[in-house]
Amino acid sequence: MSNELIMKGQKAQEVSRKLMLLSSNEKNNALEAVAEALIKREAEILEENGKDLESAKEKGITGALMDRLTLNHNRIEGIAEGLKMLINLEDPVGEVLWMKKRPNGLQLGQKRVPLGVIGIIYEARPNVTVDAFGLCFKTGNAVILRGGSEAIHANTKIVEIIQDALMSIGLPAEAVQLLEDTSRETAKEMMRLNQYIDVLIPRGGAGLIKTVVENSTIPVIETGVGNCHVYIDSEADINMAVKVAYNAKTHRPGVCNACESILINKEILDKVAPLLIAKLQEGNVEIRGDEEIKKYSDKIVDACEEDWSTEYLDYIVSMKTVANIEEAINHINTYGSKHSEAIITNNYEKSNRFLDAIDAAAVYVNASTRFTDGFEFGFGAEIGISTQKLHARGPMGLKELTTTKYIIYGNGQIRE
Amino acid sequence: MSNELIMKGQKAQEVSRKLMLLSSNEKNNALEAVAEALIKREAEILEENGKDLESAKEKGITGALMDRLTLNHNRIEGIAEGLKMLINLEDPVGEVLWMKKRPNGLQLGQKRVPLGVIGIIYEARPNVTVDAFGLCFKTGNAVILRGGSEAIHANTKIVEIIQDALMSIGLPAEAVQLLEDTSRETAKEMMRLNQYIDVLIPRGGAGLIKTVVENSTIPVIETGVGNCHVYIDSEADINMAVKVAYNAKTHRPGVCNACESILINKEILDKVAPLLIAKLQEGNVEIRGDEEIKKYSDKIVDACEEDWSTEYLDYIVSMKTVANIEEAINHINTYGSKHSEAIITNNYEKSNRFLDAIDAAAVYVNASTRFTDGFEFGFGAEIGISTQKLHARGPMGLKELTTTKYIIYGNGQIRE
Repeated sequence: MSNELIMKGQKAQEVSRKLMLLSSNEKNNALEAVAEALIKREAEILEENGKDLESAKEKGITGALMDRLTLNHNRIEGIAEGLKMLINLEDPVGEVLWMKKRPNGLQLGQKRVPLGVIGIIYEARPNVTVDAFGLCFKTGNAVILRGGSEAIHANTKIVEIIQDALMSIGLPAEAVQLLEDTSRETAKEMMRLNQYIDVLIPRGGAGLIKTVVENSTIPVIETGVGNCHVYIDSEADINMAVKVAYNAKTHRPGVCNACESILINKEILDKVAPLLIAKLQEGNVEIRGDEEIKKYSDKIVDACEEDWSTEYLDYIVSMKTVANIEEAINHINTYGSKHSEAIITNNYEKSNRFLDAIDAAAVYVNASTRFTDGFEFGFGAEIGISTQKLHARGPMGLKELTTTKYIIYGNGQIRE
Repeated sequence: MSNELIMKGQKAQEVSRKLMLLSSNEKNNALEAVAEALIKREAEILEENGKDLESAKEKGITGALMDRLTLNHNRIEGIAEGLKMLINLEDPVGEVLWMKKRPNGLQLGQKRVPLGVIGIIYEARPNVTVDAFGLCFKTGNAVILRGGSEAIHANTKIVEIIQDALMSIGLPAEAVQLLEDTSRETAKEMMRLNQYIDVLIPRGGAGLIKTVVENSTIPVIETGVGNCHVYIDSEADINMAVKVAYNAKTHRPGVCNACESILINKEILDKVAPLLIAKLQEGNVEIRGDEEIKKYSDKIVDACEEDWSTEYLDYIVSMKTVANIEEAINHINTYGSKHSEAIITNNYEKSNRFLDAIDAAAVYVNASTRFTDGFEFGFGAEIGISTQKLHARGPMGLKELTTTKYIIYGNGQIRE
């Protein structure tokens, strides 16, 4: 195990015991101070970001990846604004979820407390550095960050600014620590630091998440993959079906709550398929369909078995006809990634059947899958969208960065 | 990956989709049928258990391990009674935790649903086979069991009886499946079956739990280790301090919520130590103490660094003097296993300070650590005591075997 890791792990543990005792006011003041420091020291951040962009160019990085790596005045203002937004959110720490008196007189309650030390492994997005710090700090947790090597200069500077701001108001700098060593080996070592890190959250693509799940001895919150469906039932409102399916597919195709597959009940196929296919094709969406679907346009290519389980994250959609709602449910439970699933129907029983039988984090009746999001759900913040069932499922806000402890008030009770 | 595992994993997934839709009445009827079948077919179980005991004897197994392996008429009645007790507990599945209307008219709620497929890896205790089935079934989950090789005959028979009883009332037998192959290799393969198993719960000793945490790609709920403390503050009631510390240590030393270490404030040492040490020694407790403690009896041996972090699970206790509550808190947060910790004090501020600053699943004021238990907490059942912070912390009842899903009722909402 690298020395850097062990030292940072021990320091984080130590500091987490102080952070868990901070009042909401103290935490909010610190978030304000950090936001101001980031704005004041913008020039330093941009200079370091320039170095990252330089080496990215040399490595031939372009397009979306280059865009994600790039900071500018507006983006830094946006990042600072994000921190300030956290100030207004209710602090979940300290809430007593319930308290009751046991027959022996013990007063037993369950209280929300910080997780302790959170590890976050992410890729080349320097904005995540601030965002992750803010969410963890607001909930009283220490955080160890491991960002991508492409953003190491900007990340190092950002963490330095946060630490300076914390120290300037008498708080421990090590509330946030960044791994300087961005090698894959050290990242894998970090995944085994369960002695010091309570929870590990990977934020990035499917490859990163798979590596973390396979290697971590720390409890992981898995985020990410979304192979989401819209099922258009025989009793759907045609216009609503077209509008919702189109929105779910095209509103932002590169995100996990975008629709990847549309299922249509064969009884309504003739009414909905021509309109929907035309609209999708106008929107430059490539359609991969089964034999029934292909009849409506010769631009539709064959969908193969692999298509049913593919998250395109692009202007591509697979389309399939089903005989009834049970076939739709089976298909979704077989090929879906348990993220977000929608039915369009006006039938009461079928809406309930879909809500009950679909095994996913978010199940919709007559609405777009695109709403699966911490902000859209009204949480005011989002650390990611969990696709596992343990601890948190679906969009995670501040509460999901806490755990609980039992508090027990007695007057000398012993077990007889 | 072994064929047996993949086939059982697929089958469990398939069956879990049926179990999650069962009503509480259907599940309760099944639990009743299984309990009756176990009683009716007691002779078959005892015959198979006899084979296990025979081979255990040949292997030279004795003592507590042999006792745990042994079934008899009373124990089988007790096991069946345990199942029947589950019938009267409230079914957590289906509870809507909250529901609210979003500004765009979406009705958003969070509903409690089964986890899906639970894996349980345990040692040579055939009673766990029934217990684990009952808890998982009551909460609508399919379960894959991997018991110890020492109990394979009894386990196989018990699972056969449960499956027969389920089939006799038209339910899928594979609600419970037992791994026939009890090799360590297959157990390790099971830990990597994250495609089919949603949550893995090891029930057993520290070695088993460590192996699962280090090898599993499935989210794990860690249970077990408890290095628990009683801190006797300078403002403690002397009699209460002696009574509680003695109870926490000696009521049942072999369990995780037993006290392993007693910390005494030096200001009260002269008043409490003679009484407590005499009482512990009368109870045949070996005391390992620091220099201050050793002054009170020449039978007290030196406590070394290792003692502070040892879970004896025996009639042994370590004792240490501390200068103040902060030293006690630091000691506990450093050496404790975050399980159950108690302070004895009549001081208001110090009781609050201890409750806030101690990082543990259960923190007590003026009561024995022995109460950390699903039954004592009023949950009516217990699957184990979680010592991790993700998902569940402390005693786990039925609720902890569920997850949630978001249900969203719309009328055509799309993301603009």
